Amino acid sequence: MDPKILSNLLKDVADGKLTPDAAAERLKTLPYDDLGFAKLDTHRALRTGRGEVVFGIGKTPGQVAAIMKRLSESASLVIATKVGAEYCEAVRAALPEGLAYYETAKLLVYQSGAGGTAQPSPKEQKGTVAVVCAGTADIPIAEEAAVTAELYGVAAERYRDVGVAGIHRLLDKADDIRKADAVIAVAGMEGALASVVGGLVGVPVIAVPTSVGYGASMGGLAALLAMLNSCSLGVSVVNIDNGFGAGYLASLIVKG
Amino acid sequence: MDPKILSNLLKDVADGKLTPDAAAERLKTLPYDDLGFAKLDTHRALRTGRGEVVFGIGKTPGQVAAIMKRLSESASLVIATKVGAEYCEAVRAALPEGLAYYETAKLLVYQSGAGGTAQPSPKEQKGTVAVVCAGTADIPIAEEAAVTAELYGVAAERYRDVGVAGIHRLLDKADDIRKADAVIAVAGMEGALASVVGGLVGVPVIAVPTSVGYGASMGGLAALLAMLNSCSLGVSVVNIDNGFGAGYLASLIVKG
Amino acid sequence: MDPKILSNLLKDVADGKLTPDAAAERLKTLPYDDLGFAKLDTHRALRTGRGEVVFGIGKTPGQVAAIMKRLSESASLVIATKVGAEYCEAVRAALPEGLAYYETAKLLVYQSGAGGTAQPSPKEQKGTVAVVCAGTADIPIAEEAAVTAELYGVAAERYRDVGVAGIHRLLDKADDIRKADAVIAVAGMEGALASVVGGLVGVPVIAVPTSVGYGASMGGLAALLAMLNSCSLGVSVVNIDNGFGAGYLASLIVKG
Amino acid sequence: MDPKILSNLLKDVADGKLTPDAAAERLKTLPYDDLGFAKLDTHRALRTGRGEVVFGIGKTPGQVAAIMKRLSESASLVIATKVGAEYCEAVRAALPEGLAYYETAKLLVYQSGAGGTAQPSPKEQKGTVAVVCAGTADIPIAEEAAVTAELYGVAAERYRDVGVAGIHRLLDKADDIRKADAVIAVAGMEGALASVVGGLVGVPVIAVPTSVGYGASMGGLAALLAMLNSCSLGVSVVNIDNGFGAGYLASLIVKG
Amino acid sequence: MDPKILSNLLKDVADGKLTPDAAAERLKTLPYDDLGFAKLDTHRALRTGRGEVVFGIGKTPGQVAAIMKRLSESASLVIATKVGAEYCEAVRAALPEGLAYYETAKLLVYQSGAGGTAQPSPKEQKGTVAVVCAGTADIPIAEEAAVTAELYGVAAERYRDVGVAGIHRLLDKADDIRKADAVIAVAGMEGALASVVGGLVGVPVIAVPTSVGYGASMGGLAALLAMLNSCSLGVSVVNIDNGFGAGYLASLIVKG
Amino acid sequence: MDPKILSNLLKDVADGKLTPDAAAERLKTLPYDDLGFAKLDTHRALRTGRGEVVFGIGKTPGQVAAIMKRLSESASLVIATKVGAEYCEAVRAALPEGLAYYETAKLLVYQSGAGGTAQPSPKEQKGTVAVVCAGTADIPIAEEAAVTAELYGVAAERYRDVGVAGIHRLLDKADDIRKADAVIAVAGMEGALASVVGGLVGVPVIAVPTSVGYGASMGGLAALLAMLNSCSLGVSVVNIDNGFGAGYLASLIVKG
Amino acid sequence: MDPKILSNLLKDVADGKLTPDAAAERLKTLPYDDLGFAKLDTHRALRTGRGEVVFGIGKTPGQVAAIMKRLSESASLVIATKVGAEYCEAVRAALPEGLAYYETAKLLVYQSGAGGTAQPSPKEQKGTVAVVCAGTADIPIAEEAAVTAELYGVAAERYRDVGVAGIHRLLDKADDIRKADAVIAVAGMEGALASVVGGLVGVPVIAVPTSVGYGASMGGLAALLAMLNSCSLGVSVVNIDNGFGAGYLASLIVKG
Amino acid sequence: MDPKILSNLLKDVADGKLTPDAAAERLKTLPYDDLGFAKLDTHRALRTGRGEVVFGIGKTPGQVAAIMKRLSESASLVIATKVGAEYCEAVRAALPEGLAYYETAKLLVYQSGAGGTAQPSPKEQKGTVAVVCAGTADIPIAEEAAVTAELYGVAAERYRDVGVAGIHRLLDKADDIRKADAVIAVAGMEGALASVVGGLVGVPVIAVPTSVGYGASMGGLAALLAMLNSCSLGVSVVNIDNGFGAGYLASLIVKG
Repeated sequence: MDPKILSNLLKDVADGKLTPDAAAERLKTLPYDDLGFAKLDTHRALRTGRGEVVFGIGKTPGQVAAIMKRLSESASLVIATKVGAEYCEAVRAALPEGLAYYETAKLLVYQSGAGGTAQPSPKEQKGTVAVVCAGTADIPIAEEAAVTAELYGVAAERYRDVGVAGIHRLLDKADDIRKADAVIAVAGMEGALASVVGGLVGVPVIAVPTSVGYGASMGGLAALLAMLNSCSLGVSVVNIDNGFGAGYLASLIVKG
Repeated sequence: MDPKILSNLLKDVADGKLTPDAAAERLKTLPYDDLGFAKLDTHRALRTGRGEVVFGIGKTPGQVAAIMKRLSESASLVIATKVGAEYCEAVRAALPEGLAYYETAKLLVYQSGAGGTAQPSPKEQKGTVAVVCAGTADIPIAEEAAVTAELYGVAAERYRDVGVAGIHRLLDKADDIRKADAVIAVAGMEGALASVVGGLVGVPVIAVPTSVGYGASMGGLAALLAMLNSCSLGVSVVNIDNGFGAGYLASLIVKG
Repeated sequence: MDPKILSNLLKDVADGKLTPDAAAERLKTLPYDDLGFAKLDTHRALRTGRGEVVFGIGKTPGQVAAIMKRLSESASLVIATKVGAEYCEAVRAALPEGLAYYETAKLLVYQSGAGGTAQPSPKEQKGTVAVVCAGTADIPIAEEAAVTAELYGVAAERYRDVGVAGIHRLLDKADDIRKADAVIAVAGMEGALASVVGGLVGVPVIAVPTSVGYGASMGGLAALLAMLNSCSLGVSVVNIDNGFGAGYLASLIVKG
Repeated sequence: MDPKILSNLLKDVADGKLTPDAAAERLKTLPYDDLGFAKLDTHRALRTGRGEVVFGIGKTPGQVAAIMKRLSESASLVIATKVGAEYCEAVRAALPEGLAYYETAKLLVYQSGAGGTAQPSPKEQKGTVAVVCAGTADIPIAEEAAVTAELYGVAAERYRDVGVAGIHRLLDKADDIRKADAVIAVAGMEGALASVVGGLVGVPVIAVPTSVGYGASMGGLAALLAMLNSCSLGVSVVNIDNGFGAGYLASLIVKG
Repeated sequence: MDPKILSNLLKDVADGKLTPDAAAERLKTLPYDDLGFAKLDTHRALRTGRGEVVFGIGKTPGQVAAIMKRLSESASLVIATKVGAEYCEAVRAALPEGLAYYETAKLLVYQSGAGGTAQPSPKEQKGTVAVVCAGTADIPIAEEAAVTAELYGVAAERYRDVGVAGIHRLLDKADDIRKADAVIAVAGMEGALASVVGGLVGVPVIAVPTSVGYGASMGGLAALLAMLNSCSLGVSVVNIDNGFGAGYLASLIVKG
Repeated sequence: MDPKILSNLLKDVADGKLTPDAAAERLKTLPYDDLGFAKLDTHRALRTGRGEVVFGIGKTPGQVAAIMKRLSESASLVIATKVGAEYCEAVRAALPEGLAYYETAKLLVYQSGAGGTAQPSPKEQKGTVAVVCAGTADIPIAEEAAVTAELYGVAAERYRDVGVAGIHRLLDKADDIRKADAVIAVAGMEGALASVVGGLVGVPVIAVPTSVGYGASMGGLAALLAMLNSCSLGVSVVNIDNGFGAGYLASLIVKG
Repeated sequence: MDPKILSNLLKDVADGKLTPDAAAERLKTLPYDDLGFAKLDTHRALRTGRGEVVFGIGKTPGQVAAIMKRLSESASLVIATKVGAEYCEAVRAALPEGLAYYETAKLLVYQSGAGGTAQPSPKEQKGTVAVVCAGTADIPIAEEAAVTAELYGVAAERYRDVGVAGIHRLLDKADDIRKADAVIAVAGMEGALASVVGGLVGVPVIAVPTSVGYGASMGGLAALLAMLNSCSLGVSVVNIDNGFGAGYLASLIVKG
Repeated sequence: MDPKILSNLLKDVADGKLTPDAAAERLKTLPYDDLGFAKLDTHRALRTGRGEVVFGIGKTPGQVAAIMKRLSESASLVIATKVGAEYCEAVRAALPEGLAYYETAKLLVYQSGAGGTAQPSPKEQKGTVAVVCAGTADIPIAEEAAVTAELYGVAAERYRDVGVAGIHRLLDKADDIRKADAVIAVAGMEGALASVVGGLVGVPVIAVPTSVGYGASMGGLAALLAMLNSCSLGVSVVNIDNGFGAGYLASLIVKG
């Protein structure tokens, strides 16, 4: 409910244009949730500055284009996740300005006022998240997480190919990783990276299991279970391949 | 939000005792949910006449007694499910009047004004649910469903030991079962009863898988999956061993 | 067994044309089930007015066409579920009259006397089912449920994109949803919609898990398990993506 | 080891052509298993008359052709299972005589002396197996079982579309089914057919779960578990979609 | 329906004591299934001579005693499965004559006219089943199968501790095992016995997975899956630990 | 490696007491990790002020007492998780001072200088975590999380019995919950609470699935999967019943 | 078959005492397997010097005593695994000499000539296996592995509490671990230890998942899957909690 | 850390060019891990002579080519696993010399100095591994294992089509297999081969489950579980279809 509408209604009561009973009746019949949740929504939007998200799997390019177009009318940031490069043309046709496509991350992003690119400007970023990934096959999900964090205003430091099979590569980077405000650990197969990283740092670790692997990896289930059972403290887990969710959560944690 | 409070506030505005802005502020700061949901709750209670339910697993007799006592102060019907006979003493000490214990169903029931018993009087019942169960080991869950339906005002006809291994026993009863307004099919092991019953009747069938079985029954999972895949139309499924849920749902369906 | 055949046989006995023993022999050798089940079938058909259903997955357009053609000869309503638009041509060739294709719902429907369309006429509908779905990706299954309910004579009110992540959208519609005689809650991912809706209404809720999601959604298993464990009363569950089953069951519940 | 070879060797010893030590040495150096297992193999082949089987999944037409060609040199019956029609050409090129392709069953069969067809002649069959299947989608697996039984010399009576959702269809056939020496029950979805059939007959029932279904059928796992938990006696289970295995086993049971 | 009742009714029609319409009405209102299925039941009992079975798990000694007592009144053989020695006293109190307890097999058996023992007399047995088990821990289930087969009139030859880890033990017995009319292969852990035995014999093999094992044996699931995937022909599977079912099925196969 | 040791060694080199080669040798032979990781450990301890944790499951009271005693010698805070009240006596015998037992949370806590109690003093707390739980059976895990957060210096606001089945209870508290710096959502059964809470707040949500439930809850697996698939943003998940892990992580997030 | 028997038989043929046909018959009827497999057994025993093993789970103390007694008559080393201390008395009564009980490892060991103890003498050991375990709760399984290796003649170096959560503890020991000829990595929870150790060493790593953990550890399944998916080379896996199997395999590898 | 750098630094201290404090500071700030792990890496490479491995699944030909090219600059052996023949062209373009493609094994191998082929020369091999596989469909994984072992310097003896369904084929080869220093057992379906082989030999057996099978084989899970539960001693397991891992491990075991 728009505050103006409420003010006007109450003024009408004060002015005698509306009896208290009639006003009460109107207030009752107004969708009760509108009041609270419009406020709520605004509150959330104001505080978090979070834009809208379109989950791309199972949607056609045309559908993604239509949804992004609509959302762009009321949001300054619209992100479509897990969309291939073949979506770009259709979306660009609908939204010629302000689009950027992150190929590795499979993110298609609209930012109002961004002109031809949505590349976030570094100077706006606050805090840092370290995005650590085990193997090269995990990079797309890691990149999905890193770019998401950047889009929500957090700097992302990438640490790639630091899987536990050659742990010195990870340890070489440990001091740098420790400087981050949060860590995202991305790994498939046995998912041991989350536990090792969790033991090295003193900040929250968001573990992202990936579907990288075969056989008994069961599409990422092995890594997921391993991460949930991490013997390290400070580790929590998101869905398999959910790089976006990890990046979003990291930005919430880092920006406080 | 109490309507009187709203009326008084608006009268104050009309009387000039409160400025519109101050009133708007107060309306904003009132817990927005109270208005809608107090109404909602009353509405639900009035329409469904449903009492409160206490899930007994994992609670001590003392805890169940305390909760039932508290709930009995505002509800005319309180049901504790899956409680053993050893709970009766503690609950009776707290609630000396109006209790009944259904041993097979493992239901402990409080009804206000029921004196020493909560046995529902048949004359209040409307409509009928047929509670069909496959084997003698399924009877406790079937009874949990049947008594629950009765407590919520629906007559329950019991059909026991009509498993599909000797299908003539079930077919002998088919005409009677067809007269019911809904059917609850209770079966463990392979859970085939739900499909066969579903093919015989033209009313909703609520399938209750039970944990009866061993080995590949996996605690009722085999029956659950079978019932979810029923080739008969009109069948839906509740959780394994959830006789109460089936009885409750049946009463909603039958009483319309 | 046709009652006339039985009457004639008995008359022959009364007329001395047939000895009691010969009659007993003939009665024994008649397929015993025919008597009961022909009656049964007629009874079901008369009472429920339910047509035949063809499950489309795994059948070729030619097979669906042949089956629908055959069924159309004895049924006034024939529904083929989960068939793509590419099936229409083959079926229309076999059944030029009375076909309608619901593209989103993937339902291909024959109704006798429907001419070029099977669109159910609203005036024949009795009662209402609210079909509530969580996200846009769940709409096809929700539509399969809604159209099915309509085809069986129940009005379907659609509530789309009311997932629990923005619960005010659902609450805004709560009063309307509460007016329905039954609710179908369609959701993938975590399937929380069923529990929240179940807590808002006082009528039966049919929960339909969908395969929408990825990773740990395991093809809808996560939503299925969640719905089976709903803490709300009055909720039962059908198979993953089984919109037809939910619509059918809803029509049974609503029409009583 | 060919008995003749053994006899000749011993005769050479008796004739003084071979010293006992040289004979002992030759007997030692002969692969010790050959003696026993050649006998064994012959024994099995003589008694069961079983030909060789080629499992087609994952093999190219060329590979199947090569294997069947080789096997046909020492076996009078060679069966390739689960091969599509596209395999025929390659196999016919290698084996121009004695081939038959069963399209629904996806069996490609070589019989020596069969000329252009391997169609088993009915007069050679002994005993009968009833092959009962739940839905039309189960027919390919049922046919795989039925043809296999026929190829191994047992008559197969087909009962199709007798699923438990309309149990009168099955009961109409019960007396006929009971006349068989064994029953193969083929069903997907909830697999209830095996239990119902198991309750109707007094002969061994071989249950074949099929992968027909979707969602919680989990590729046939629901039917498999249901069948393993059958409450009917005399039921055993083979792998999902293993029509060949069921037909083979049935022929062993029926021919004794 | 008793044939006499039918005859009398028809005689009444012939005698003019009953009009054809009244007779038709009575025939309609008679429970239609009684006719067919009473016949069916008798038919089955006559042909199979199978007694009644009580599944002991989850039943108290008192319940088992009561059920066996009741069944003993109409059956000459009553078997209670999976009952501990502590059940004997209660059952003996109810059924002082004709009881035998098989401790290893956990079978409690009543046979009418057996006096103080139900030990089946060897001379009545026809055919032989070889009961082969992998380890000493599998013996109880193997014994459950063997005694069951004996009770149903088939001789059981026991082959114990012939697991595949020392395959010569099994091969030493192969010629003897091959003489049986059917084989029951009982094994936990990896369940490989079924495949090896299946490759050695030319008769039906009933595989019984047991819950012997730990860790990844998952209560017998590993053995169950292995047996279902047996590369040997002629193997079918019953539920985990279902020795009774295997023995029952073996007797059906052997006695034909 | 103690920095003093290094300094002294280098001084010895500067003083000529040690040749560079001898020093290099000593530096090589010193456990190389000691240098880095002693520093690392100190660094972590200094920054996070985190004490040691003893996982109680599977340990005897004596073992827990011995471990806590040893750890108390070098740590100012030692927490034993998931220990029953029966552990207190043994631990108090070993550690007479500074112990507190949180009965609902099953936490046994040692704090140096705490005298007879380890109750954290509120004035030391910084930031707030809202601990929201669905049902009364979830309270122990919720309390484990809340007390843990408090012990690590974060205020915990408890919101109990705000399950989604009666969503107004949760909405009534939404404004308060929104004020927290992080939210812990504790729920068993279908675990929908995490998604609903995630949609209401703009801070990180740590979801804790509990093993509360039965049947298809599969020991908490249903809630775990649901939470991993949450359609709300900002939600991550810890292991089933891992209240300690959630409280620990919350303190990392809140204290930044 | 004893070679002398064969020689004599052939001499009899040469001497005319036995006709070739009679000899052929005798050769056929000799158990064919005896020849090869008696040799085989001796061969294995001679080469591996492996004693007999009794798996204790599910056996009574009396049964274990009887089996060990019998095996001790032909074997110089008999090991019973997973037996509690309460088994010792019964076994000592049967085998008063040569027994040793390893309490943590739950191994009861008989060695001929060991007098009152079976403690293996270090001087007989050849090669070394490093037994590395993650947490104190994993020690029993690690000890089962270590003692087993020692009993089979390989020295075992224990590395305890070197879980990956504090990886410096493991790295501190890396140089020592690298000196071993094989490594056994024992870990529950997420099982990451196997991958990290696998990355540190250049020898075979035998991974032993343990059932230590709760919730999503699923009785060790999470660790098992993680270890199977190890990104490190040279890692293989044994069953959950199978310390004995790992120790046995390690001795095979180390002793070559 | 390069030892020279350390020496120079310490000389500077001895020479007074650097104060002990400044030297301590520099030692602290040097990446601590470099010292240990550079040494470690060299140590491993020197001892094992193991090259780099590229896991091909999910990588494009271009990516594999680029990675192999880069690795070839520092390694004398680079293996890409699970790559189809279509990868060869791209890799040959990048690496014209020293490449060999093993079609059945799907291995693409670079060896420096190999000219046009990487075929390992037999004379360099030490020790033998027997690679035993159950069926023809398992050959690709068996070949992946065998070629890998050969590339790492171990001779591989292939034993194909020796599945347990016709166990004499395996027994015929038992004496040969026993001569190997290790055995790799490759099998899908029920995976019984590993147990049977494990019982025949006295050397380590590496079991490789394959995804060969259908239905309840669950993509190799049945074989995996069976192998983990092997009743034979000396058996360990690698991931489903992980022929490379088995070959690598075998070379570690055989070469000691």
